[in-house]
Amino acid sequence: MNRAPVNSLNLELLQEISKSLDEVAKNKTKAMILTSASPTVFSAGLDIMEMYKPDLKRAEQFWTTLQDVWLKLFGSNFITAAAINGHAPAGGCLLSMSCEYRAMVSGKYAIGLNETALGIIAPTWFMDTMCHTIPIRQAEYALTTAKMFSVEEALKVGLIDEAAADKADAIEKCKQFIRKFDKIPPLARAITKQKIRQAPLARLQKNRQQDIEEFLGILKNPLIQQGLEKYIQALKQKAAK
Amino acid sequence: MNRAPVNSLNLELLQEISKSLDEVAKNKTKAMILTSASPTVFSAGLDIMEMYKPDLKRAEQFWTTLQDVWLKLFGSNFITAAAINGHAPAGGCLLSMSCEYRAMVSGKYAIGLNETALGIIAPTWFMDTMCHTIPIRQAEYALTTAKMFSVEEALKVGLIDEAAADKADAIEKCKQFIRKFDKIPPLARAITKQKIRQAPLARLQKNRQQDIEEFLGILKNPLIQQGLEKYIQALKQKAAK
Amino acid sequence: MNRAPVNSLNLELLQEISKSLDEVAKNKTKAMILTSASPTVFSAGLDIMEMYKPDLKRAEQFWTTLQDVWLKLFGSNFITAAAINGHAPAGGCLLSMSCEYRAMVSGKYAIGLNETALGIIAPTWFMDTMCHTIPIRQAEYALTTAKMFSVEEALKVGLIDEAAADKADAIEKCKQFIRKFDKIPPLARAITKQKIRQAPLARLQKNRQQDIEEFLGILKNPLIQQGLEKYIQALKQKAAK
Repeated sequence: MNRAPVNSLNLELLQEISKSLDEVAKNKTKAMILTSASPTVFSAGLDIMEMYKPDLKRAEQFWTTLQDVWLKLFGSNFITAAAINGHAPAGGCLLSMSCEYRAMVSGKYAIGLNETALGIIAPTWFMDTMCHTIPIRQAEYALTTAKMFSVEEALKVGLIDEAAADKADAIEKCKQFIRKFDKIPPLARAITKQKIRQAPLARLQKNRQQDIEEFLGILKNPLIQQGLEKYIQALKQKAAK
Repeated sequence: MNRAPVNSLNLELLQEISKSLDEVAKNKTKAMILTSASPTVFSAGLDIMEMYKPDLKRAEQFWTTLQDVWLKLFGSNFITAAAINGHAPAGGCLLSMSCEYRAMVSGKYAIGLNETALGIIAPTWFMDTMCHTIPIRQAEYALTTAKMFSVEEALKVGLIDEAAADKADAIEKCKQFIRKFDKIPPLARAITKQKIRQAPLARLQKNRQQDIEEFLGILKNPLIQQGLEKYIQALKQKAAK
Repeated sequence: MNRAPVNSLNLELLQEISKSLDEVAKNKTKAMILTSASPTVFSAGLDIMEMYKPDLKRAEQFWTTLQDVWLKLFGSNFITAAAINGHAPAGGCLLSMSCEYRAMVSGKYAIGLNETALGIIAPTWFMDTMCHTIPIRQAEYALTTAKMFSVEEALKVGLIDEAAADKADAIEKCKQFIRKFDKIPPLARAITKQKIRQAPLARLQKNRQQDIEEFLGILKNPLIQQGLEKYIQALKQKAAK
């Protein structure tokens, strides 16, 4: 991912990721490592400007593309690993959890689904993805309290698989994970992965339209818009300092 | 809860709890801490006398009220925490697991769903609540063996979140948990909680009548009644000593 | 299990196990310990010769019997424990996971669902059984990488409950587990077990025919047959050394 400064997931970046996932699948590439060109942020998550005072047509396209990206990434037949080389809140956390393996660079970075802190609600398939990664008790606690996990905490609860010294080390650890499949017939591997991920995949596929309407409904809620406005003001003040 | 001596959950106590939950919800109170006025028992669970040689009409009302209490507590929009200041078998364990956080006073107290020891069967939604708290492997072991966990065991498996020195400390720890939400918009928090708890809530809501009939069917089973009689005799002998 | 040399599960052995399970149920026996007459192998899993260039009629009977065995074992009303006294790959792992308790002899033995290494795919109910035993994150990792766990690894992740010094010790530990139920009314115990295992049981019962067709479809796939041929060749070369 390379959208300066913090890989905010706007419509255009999501479209690029979606296209990249198609290409990886088409090229019969064996594996993909997801990482960031930014030195401090893996991805800041969904771009708030897509949600604040939105054009509803674009918002619908935005959400549809995010669904596409998740369905392709979480359900991919190729191997997926995330080298998390910086902060990974909200959508950034989602993308990394959708991979099969996570190595995260030690330091002051944090990872988590912190949607409630912004007054918004992680959709069911974000929750499903987290419950596929960590126990439901920990997922509920993390989701309701908007918890951002340090690398040590994430490792302990299983939100990441390994801590890494730096980006190169994180990528090397991803490669080690990918090499575990060198002797595994790829078709059996792919079907096995898709079978164990089938319930959350099928749930979204069945409810795509309803999920879009739920998202648009949230955007139309004045309380939610006020919350976003407040958050954007706080970001601006922070930037002005 | 304050029904001497051991907060046995009979129809009247359940009706009171149900009413209290309505009031907390109506008053837009932020949070609720569930604890006991007894110095040694959080709650002894369902009152056996509601099940032994029951009036079936009252038994139906009893079970309906228990369902109400669980639906309101497990699915509440306000924050819920349990300060477990004594034994919490069966229904006592259920009430505490239905909260979002549990601090339990260290000592000789125990907690668990021990229904099978009495020859009765925890309903599916009791099991769902336990599987929402601890891993399913541990839940199966605990449910079939009627395991009562010491504070140390409960902490290790995740059945409670923290051990406390005494009741005041348990309540203080609950307050600390509640303060974690000070900066979280309450609407987003509430919907997030209800979303991640939706599957078990929906399952009971869909099967309430069937669940009542199952309970009444169990009460009509002579083997179950014999088991309860034996248990009551044992309690009486113990009391006579 | 006693089919020399490695308890490969062919049609005849599965029919015997199925019959034994019926007898245990009919005799109102309290409990069953599953172990192996082989000194080094608990069970090598499904007999590959039932899958390689199969007679489709026999293959259908083979799979139906395997379904029967699992439904009877995973859903039994009597207590089940596995004394794992040797290797337990694939079907061997499945049988032990279908019990309620596992003690495994320490040493160089390994356990796991390693189907993908052979180019085949564990069916949904194998996966369900594993997810009933260990967390879904670990199950996905184990299933896709064909991981064979050492005793220490299996203990850590919860795939087994205890390590044992030898077969006698494993059986003694199983007996200790069984004795935990001495004071538990058997009917309440059995229904409680079946209730918490209901979702995976119901899923297979509902999809038995589809599951058989999926299995036969896999056998008809030339890629799968090539994989099995390669595997058999490797086994022969190993045996020739």
